[in-house]
Amino acid sequence: MTSIQKWIYDSRPKGEISPQNYRLVQTDETLAPVRGEVVVEGVFWSVDPYMRIQQSAKDTWEPPHPLGEVQNGGVVGRVTEVGDGTKGLQIGDWVETFMGWRTHGVLSAVSCRKLDPEIAPVSTALHVLGMPGRIAYFGLTEAGKPRPGETLLVSGAAGAVGSIVGQVGKLAGLHVVGVVGTEEKARWIVHDLGFDAAINYCDHQSAGTMVDAFCKVAPNGIDIYYDNTGGYTTDAVIQSMNLRARIIICGQISQYQGGLDDPNTGPRLLHHFLYKRATLQGVLARDFTARMDEMLTHMGPWVRDGKIRYHETIIDGFNNLPKALCGLFEGANTGKMLVKV
Amino acid sequence: MTSIQKWIYDSRPKGEISPQNYRLVQTDETLAPVRGEVVVEGVFWSVDPYMRIQQSAKDTWEPPHPLGEVQNGGVVGRVTEVGDGTKGLQIGDWVETFMGWRTHGVLSAVSCRKLDPEIAPVSTALHVLGMPGRIAYFGLTEAGKPRPGETLLVSGAAGAVGSIVGQVGKLAGLHVVGVVGTEEKARWIVHDLGFDAAINYCDHQSAGTMVDAFCKVAPNGIDIYYDNTGGYTTDAVIQSMNLRARIIICGQISQYQGGLDDPNTGPRLLHHFLYKRATLQGVLARDFTARMDEMLTHMGPWVRDGKIRYHETIIDGFNNLPKALCGLFEGANTGKMLVKV
Repeated sequence: MTSIQKWIYDSRPKGEISPQNYRLVQTDETLAPVRGEVVVEGVFWSVDPYMRIQQSAKDTWEPPHPLGEVQNGGVVGRVTEVGDGTKGLQIGDWVETFMGWRTHGVLSAVSCRKLDPEIAPVSTALHVLGMPGRIAYFGLTEAGKPRPGETLLVSGAAGAVGSIVGQVGKLAGLHVVGVVGTEEKARWIVHDLGFDAAINYCDHQSAGTMVDAFCKVAPNGIDIYYDNTGGYTTDAVIQSMNLRARIIICGQISQYQGGLDDPNTGPRLLHHFLYKRATLQGVLARDFTARMDEMLTHMGPWVRDGKIRYHETIIDGFNNLPKALCGLFEGANTGKMLVKV
Repeated sequence: MTSIQKWIYDSRPKGEISPQNYRLVQTDETLAPVRGEVVVEGVFWSVDPYMRIQQSAKDTWEPPHPLGEVQNGGVVGRVTEVGDGTKGLQIGDWVETFMGWRTHGVLSAVSCRKLDPEIAPVSTALHVLGMPGRIAYFGLTEAGKPRPGETLLVSGAAGAVGSIVGQVGKLAGLHVVGVVGTEEKARWIVHDLGFDAAINYCDHQSAGTMVDAFCKVAPNGIDIYYDNTGGYTTDAVIQSMNLRARIIICGQISQYQGGLDDPNTGPRLLHHFLYKRATLQGVLARDFTARMDEMLTHMGPWVRDGKIRYHETIIDGFNNLPKALCGLFEGANTGKMLVKV
C-alpha cells in the first residue's frame, strides 16, 4: 500500500482563484501496473495560467475542468514500478507526464516522455524544453514570421513563455522589448536574458503613456507582438504597430481572474488592423504537440550551450500547489513556477 | 472658360459628419491639357465610408485628409478634351478616375481607367467592378480562404462591399448570413441576392441575444466573418466562431463617427482567439490595385451573366455630395451610394 495525496479541484472560483477552491485528500492505495503501464512518483509539478482558463464556466478549447476531480497538469517524476511491455521505461527513469496534482500515478507508458538528465535538469521538461518552450518557439517562428531587424514586443516577458520568446527572438535577429511587472524582472530580462529593453507596466496607468514609452524603446515601431497578458498593454501595441504587424495571442492572463466569464471592457481598436493590414492569431501549445522533437532539436542545444537561459521559482511541498497556482496571478514567479517535493 | 464646381473639405467633424464640414466653390477655369493629359467631366461620384476615416485627426493608412482641399474620391466621367500622347483615350470615352469632388478635372491619362459600356453600366466601375468589388473579392478569397460548406457571416451586408462579399461567398459554396440594419435590406439580400439568411442588428441590443440569433441562422458556427461594421456584432461573432475561424476587417463603420479619435469601449474578448486558434486580418483595397484585371476576369462575367447582382442608391445633383456621404452613416444606402449629374 502506498500513501497517496491528491489535490481535488473542488469549487469554481468567483473572480480570483484561492486555495479554498481545492481540497487535499489522502488515501492508501495499491499501485498495480498492468501490461503497458508504469507507476510514476512525482517530483516537480507545473502550475500554469491555462489552469485558470479551464476554471471558466464556459467552454474554451475544451469544456471546463470537471469539479471533484484531480487538478490536471504536467508533472516530472521517476518511474518506481513497471508492468510488462514497457521496455522503453525502466525503474528509476525520469519522465514527464500529464498526471496532474497527485503524488503517484499509474500511467500508460506511452503517455510518459522519457527524459535525459544529461541534456538539461529534468525540471526543464516542464518549461523551456516542454510545453511552454514549444509554444514559445512555434508561436514566434510560425505565427510571428520574424525577419531579422524587426522589432518584437513580448508581454509577460519574465514568465515561463515570455522569457523564452524574447531569447528566441534575439537568436532570430530581432530587436526585443519585454513588458514586465517589477523592476527586478526588468533587470533580469535585460541583463541576464539579453532583451534590448524592458517596460514595467506598473509605471503606466493607461495605454496612452505606454504608447509614449514604446516610442523610446521601440523607435522603429512594433512588427511582432507576442501577447501573454492582454489588457491595456495590448491597447498600446495596437496603436504602435507597423504595417503588416503580426500579433500572437498566446495568453491573456490579465483577464483570467473573472474576466473570462464577465468580460472587462476596453477601447474598440480593431480599425487599426485595417490601417496596418495587421494580423492577429491565437496559438495553443497542443497544436504543436506532434512537433515536440522538432522544437527540442533547436532548443535542446541552445539550452545546453547557454544561448537560452531560464529561471525557476520553486515552491517546496506538494501541500503548496494551490498557493503556487494563485501566485502566478500575482506575478510571484520569475520564469517558471514549479512545486517540488 | 469652363464653369467648375468643387466641394472643399473645410473643417474636421467632431463626432458626426455633416454637410457643414464642406464648402462649395465655383470658378471659371481654362482647362488646357498638356502632353499626356485629358479633361474629364464627371457624371457619377462615389461616396465611401473610408472618407470619414480620413477625417480622423490621427494618421490611418495615410495622414488625415488635408483641410481646404477638394474631397478626394472616385469618379466616373467622360473625356471631353485630350492632349497629345493620350491615344489610348479619345473624346467621348468613359473613364474611372480618382479626381475627387469636382465637376471637371485635368488629369494624367494614365490615371484614368477606360471603361467598356458593353460589359456593364459604367457606374459599376465605382462599385461591383471597381474598388469595392476588388476588396470584396480579394478580401474574401485571399484573407477568408473559403472552403465549400463553411459558414460566412457578413456585416454591412446590404452595403457596396458586403452585398458583393455574400454573393461571391455563395458562388464559393458557402452558407452565407448577412447582418443588416432594416427589414427591407434583409429581404433584399435574401430574396434578390441569394443570401441564406439575414439578421437585423436593430433587433438586438447587445451581443448576447445576437449570439442566440446566430445559433439559429448559422447552426454550424461561423468560419469566416467579413466585417464592415465592427461594434457588438463583432463581439457576438467572436463568441460564435469555429476552430480556426478567419475574421476579415474590411471596415468598422460603427466606429467612424467619433470613435476613431475617442474610442468606444467594448468587452475584452481576445482570449477567444486562443481557444479557437482564430485569425483576424485587416485588408485594404489598395493592396490589390495591381490585381484589378484579375478581379475583373472573374467578376465581369459574373455581373454580365447576372450571377452577381447589385443595387445603386443614386442621389441627383453635385450639390448633394456631402449629404450623400452623411447618409452612409445613417444606413441610407442599399448597395452602392452614388451621386449623379
